Amino acid sequence: MDVNEFRKRGKEVIDAIADYYEAVNDIPPMSTVSPGYLYKLLPHEAPESPESFDAIQRDLQTKIMPGMTHWQSGNFFSWFPSNSSFPAILGDMYSSMFDVVGFNWLCSPAATELETVVMDWLGKLIGLDKRFLSFKEDGTEGNGGGVIQGSASEAHIVAMIAAREMALERLKAQDGATSEDVDKQRHKLVAYFSDQTHSSGQKAANVIGCKTTSVPTGEDFRLTKEALERAIAQDKEQGLIPFFVCGTFGTTNTTAIDDLPGIADVAQHESLWHHIDAAYAGSALTCPEFRPLAAGSERADSFNFNPHKWMLTNFDCSALWVADSTHLVNALSIHREYYPKVEGDTAFIKDYRNWQLPLGRRFRSLKLWFVMRMYGAEGIRKHIRDDVAQAKWLADQLVADGRFELIVPVVFGLAVLRIKPEALNDPAMVDKANTELIKAINDDGRVFLVGTKLNGNDVLRVAVGSTFGTQKNIDLLLKILKEQATKVIAGLE
Amino acid sequence: MDVNEFRKRGKEVIDAIADYYEAVNDIPPMSTVSPGYLYKLLPHEAPESPESFDAIQRDLQTKIMPGMTHWQSGNFFSWFPSNSSFPAILGDMYSSMFDVVGFNWLCSPAATELETVVMDWLGKLIGLDKRFLSFKEDGTEGNGGGVIQGSASEAHIVAMIAAREMALERLKAQDGATSEDVDKQRHKLVAYFSDQTHSSGQKAANVIGCKTTSVPTGEDFRLTKEALERAIAQDKEQGLIPFFVCGTFGTTNTTAIDDLPGIADVAQHESLWHHIDAAYAGSALTCPEFRPLAAGSERADSFNFNPHKWMLTNFDCSALWVADSTHLVNALSIHREYYPKVEGDTAFIKDYRNWQLPLGRRFRSLKLWFVMRMYGAEGIRKHIRDDVAQAKWLADQLVADGRFELIVPVVFGLAVLRIKPEALNDPAMVDKANTELIKAINDDGRVFLVGTKLNGNDVLRVAVGSTFGTQKNIDLLLKILKEQATKVIAGLE
Repeated sequence: MDVNEFRKRGKEVIDAIADYYEAVNDIPPMSTVSPGYLYKLLPHEAPESPESFDAIQRDLQTKIMPGMTHWQSGNFFSWFPSNSSFPAILGDMYSSMFDVVGFNWLCSPAATELETVVMDWLGKLIGLDKRFLSFKEDGTEGNGGGVIQGSASEAHIVAMIAAREMALERLKAQDGATSEDVDKQRHKLVAYFSDQTHSSGQKAANVIGCKTTSVPTGEDFRLTKEALERAIAQDKEQGLIPFFVCGTFGTTNTTAIDDLPGIADVAQHESLWHHIDAAYAGSALTCPEFRPLAAGSERADSFNFNPHKWMLTNFDCSALWVADSTHLVNALSIHREYYPKVEGDTAFIKDYRNWQLPLGRRFRSLKLWFVMRMYGAEGIRKHIRDDVAQAKWLADQLVADGRFELIVPVVFGLAVLRIKPEALNDPAMVDKANTELIKAINDDGRVFLVGTKLNGNDVLRVAVGSTFGTQKNIDLLLKILKEQATKVIAGLE
Repeated sequence: MDVNEFRKRGKEVIDAIADYYEAVNDIPPMSTVSPGYLYKLLPHEAPESPESFDAIQRDLQTKIMPGMTHWQSGNFFSWFPSNSSFPAILGDMYSSMFDVVGFNWLCSPAATELETVVMDWLGKLIGLDKRFLSFKEDGTEGNGGGVIQGSASEAHIVAMIAAREMALERLKAQDGATSEDVDKQRHKLVAYFSDQTHSSGQKAANVIGCKTTSVPTGEDFRLTKEALERAIAQDKEQGLIPFFVCGTFGTTNTTAIDDLPGIADVAQHESLWHHIDAAYAGSALTCPEFRPLAAGSERADSFNFNPHKWMLTNFDCSALWVADSTHLVNALSIHREYYPKVEGDTAFIKDYRNWQLPLGRRFRSLKLWFVMRMYGAEGIRKHIRDDVAQAKWLADQLVADGRFELIVPVVFGLAVLRIKPEALNDPAMVDKANTELIKAINDDGRVFLVGTKLNGNDVLRVAVGSTFGTQKNIDLLLKILKEQATKVIAGLE
């Protein structure tokens, strides 16, 4: 494909993308293919000779499209949103164009410096404490800073590595400790989560190979100071060494907010690294009215949220800040002669390769820059507030219906609900009713959602937040929820 | 930005990309800005109101462009290539359009299944042993398979986690071993690299927190069986437990190829996980004439190379295969109720989230599919062979010049060379001459390359492999090398 064909084909693809977004709300959001459908449609070896772009576009329509679940549909209410936006797509096209591997400043100064700048923009936009910013108000370098990771899981791993480094340093500093003594204690390190923490916490622990303690939450699914203290005391009696705790701002199951000030107290007292996972709900902090909910975060060691979830920035873009980058950089820095050092103010030449797991890095700050500039702070806040209003409206309608109950109040864009036991002839059938309801809704196919289990009970999760959804989509969902509930309840009688 | 403005602006961006590639060989490849240049040009907060796309495009030209180092220039000879291509850019645009988070099959069946299919295509294209493929010849499921990682570093970490799982299982299986006994031995695990292994090996060890032994290489910079055996014997005497070895197919410094059959022998004898890092040179295996050099790889446990380096696929796309996925999946699987399981043939519903560090994953197989189809196997081979021929031609010219020497023979697209001591009045000035030569070339600015150190000596690395480079760029580089060598040698007299 030469540059002239690229001009032609690229514009066709732009039109195909525009056409897709114009149609996406009108096609079933969930794919209904069966496992193995694609294997049967495709050859089993790469072609020897080049194929035409027409052939590929045809296959996209006839073979790939049927196997797509459409996360960008306004009728997609599963998991959490994965916000695409036109500014982010365009920003990412420029990133593809440059295709730089920005492992250090010299690799492309603009890629490093724009990231430093926009991560400070983003930190200020969500009201993050100044400790987390790269630059102090006088323009001098702070101890902390932000970095774009690929995912909240990577952020979790990176934070846990810094935590381990901090803990091992503390052990080394003990009187007369040899490095052999420290080594022998490594397996005693234990990280704390709640039973509602996202799977990425346990995964991070599996990656670094440390122990974990899952602290039970109560009725409101929040990790409390008292429960954490109890768990730590028990573990310390067993000779374990607490080193890390994750507080969640908006859990996956219910968007519960852990007792962040209480966790901060415990973290300080026990010298734990305190990581805050705000993967989904962090985007809401662009709106000042949500910030009181995040009190305590100003005392954390690291804070992470995903603009690629609910802040209009295409996957992948996960924002991680650390209040002090020393431990992280110490743990992950490796010098080689082929990574030339540049002299200059270290505030500007951050070696982000030492802030992350991979060496290479895509120029991801471009799309974030495009999004923040083209929506402006007010446009981003409007997106969040509209979604929250829609989720609350839906919840109100369902409660008013009389047959549904909310499991928790709607705080952000997630409604967690079920047909209530009292709506059934036999209240003991409530789990069956709700699993059947989920199935019936997804079999209907006009909207797509997934369930979860809370305290052993089956419930529905409705995540409102698509870039391209409107009240019309919520109306449709409400209609289907009511219709299918009627059928399910009748079927159980 | 509404869909109509996206149609207009998207086409402008396509033209901007095409214009960029038409011009990229004529602009200086290395940015010459000073650290902090961008901070001074940009505001320090996100705008409150939306800005126009025109304003952003202007800033791209005037503020971002000067800070770019142009990896896509044919005059960029630093590190290794980062191949962009038009088919990959278009494929990635579709990936941005769908913006799915493919953590399991249901998230978008096509995203999971296309990855399984194209990773088998790619494995066959580089002549990888059948053990690494997802499907056996009869279409049934194999034990192994391929997965797209973000980078070779992530592949390295993932392989090392699987290796640790395998080692711990072995320790658990010992007579009477309690899990406490096993835990106490964790800190004795040691991974093996050569002194030429890429920094990602040490980084992976830092991530999982294990010991490492760097095995010295000899004159040819290769890790040998004998040196590995000696290192292992010494470590075992100290009570350490060897569990992982990385063999490199094409090191970063010199593209040296480790003694892969010898390493395979040792790995088998010592029950080590044998990972092969072919990040750069793996692309050459698309050409059958290079495959004898990779003998031994058929006995490895994992094999990784980066199509985003030298195989025309935009960053990020790193291909990892494992011969048996059991240990990997065991180590990284975490079930949560919000990840619904799908019933069906497990060959088709691979949960790739359990094959990688992150949970979410971009639809990266699309761009790889576009590249393999639009270039065809023959187009990819031509790209590789042309680059190798150019690198060899350059090396021959430099040797014929009389003042240069090659440090190692050119095997792939990398030439490692220096002004030879005999070309200088004072041969002891050879390192000074060569660091000055690198500086002079980069100060000239028409081409860009980096040096490295080998056995303490400064040498030049010339990596040929740009998608958009031609013989013209090599001619220019040769001219500049000779001119600047003349000046440097004269300056030292």
